[in-house]
Amino acid sequence: MRTIGIDPGSITTGYGMIEMQNNAFVALAFGVVRLNVKASFPSRLKKLYDELAVLIEQHRPTRLALETAFYGKNAQSALKLGQVRGAIQVLAMNYGLEVLEYSPREVKKSLTGAGNASKEQVAFMVRKLLNLSTTGEFLDATDALGLALCDAFKHHALLESEMHALRDVRLQTQKRRYSSWKSFIDANPHLLRS
Amino acid sequence: MRTIGIDPGSITTGYGMIEMQNNAFVALAFGVVRLNVKASFPSRLKKLYDELAVLIEQHRPTRLALETAFYGKNAQSALKLGQVRGAIQVLAMNYGLEVLEYSPREVKKSLTGAGNASKEQVAFMVRKLLNLSTTGEFLDATDALGLALCDAFKHHALLESEMHALRDVRLQTQKRRYSSWKSFIDANPHLLRS
Repeated sequence: MRTIGIDPGSITTGYGMIEMQNNAFVALAFGVVRLNVKASFPSRLKKLYDELAVLIEQHRPTRLALETAFYGKNAQSALKLGQVRGAIQVLAMNYGLEVLEYSPREVKKSLTGAGNASKEQVAFMVRKLLNLSTTGEFLDATDALGLALCDAFKHHALLESEMHALRDVRLQTQKRRYSSWKSFIDANPHLLRS
Repeated sequence: MRTIGIDPGSITTGYGMIEMQNNAFVALAFGVVRLNVKASFPSRLKKLYDELAVLIEQHRPTRLALETAFYGKNAQSALKLGQVRGAIQVLAMNYGLEVLEYSPREVKKSLTGAGNASKEQVAFMVRKLLNLSTTGEFLDATDALGLALCDAFKHHALLESEMHALRDVRLQTQKRRYSSWKSFIDANPHLLRS
């Protein structure tokens, strides 16, 4: 299972692509797309769209984890962030990716156990889980990698719980009791000697 | 020249496609894309993207006129509108359309001569210029058609002024005076009998 985490911004957008291999997570690609603030907004969005599209075509993730928008007080910056988020959502849909949203708090809690963990604690856990060294590229992409890991944990936990539920159903089926010999024989005619 | 005007909204987005034919404007398509508010935002954006993409593929406009965002006080609605605008901007870029932005005031001024014209005055002019009847579909798309007309006027005026400039250059070239017979002969040696 592959997830691309995206931490959107109107100037820089971080990304991190991870995969689960033998119960461990591996970072396949991470970094940041920096946009030219002098370019028109549509051409900025196009650059972001195209750079992320190349990554998606290379690594073919099935899930895209996006940071939940934080509603600041400034409507103008909310509009800009919205435009970037809209471009990313359309990209995800055009490539058939599922879009999942996580708040910074959820990411922190999922990685460190505490919703109010510091940036450093989160970076420490991301680095540790993915076995990465602390480069500038890593620091720029930490939040995006954190988002991808958070999604992978949740998705993995969901799969685990589905497996447990399936096993429970099997056990219940095996443990089924019969009220009488007659009902047992009716339910299991193949056990009778003809 | 074909322009698609788009009046974006997080629930309904109006569109109007116009073309200039023999110095008159013709509406090729207009209407509204209504989005299901119960659907996830990415799937809403995808529906909008796909419906507008079909129109663009059918009519192949070269310009997309978008209403300038109005910065309200509410950051949450600005974010939503931003997401819709981002999807439209990416669509335009993916199809190689030029994106032009006009404020409601510019549209009003361009169509009626007054920046503070009423909605009814604008609708009257749009209907008159495009020779349309007042249907519900027209009313939904009035702002989008107004945007497209505003762009067409501006673009047409630009082309006109370029033609005037070109003619002026030609006239100046023709009117060039010579200070003496010698300079005239030097500039026009082909006129001399050998």
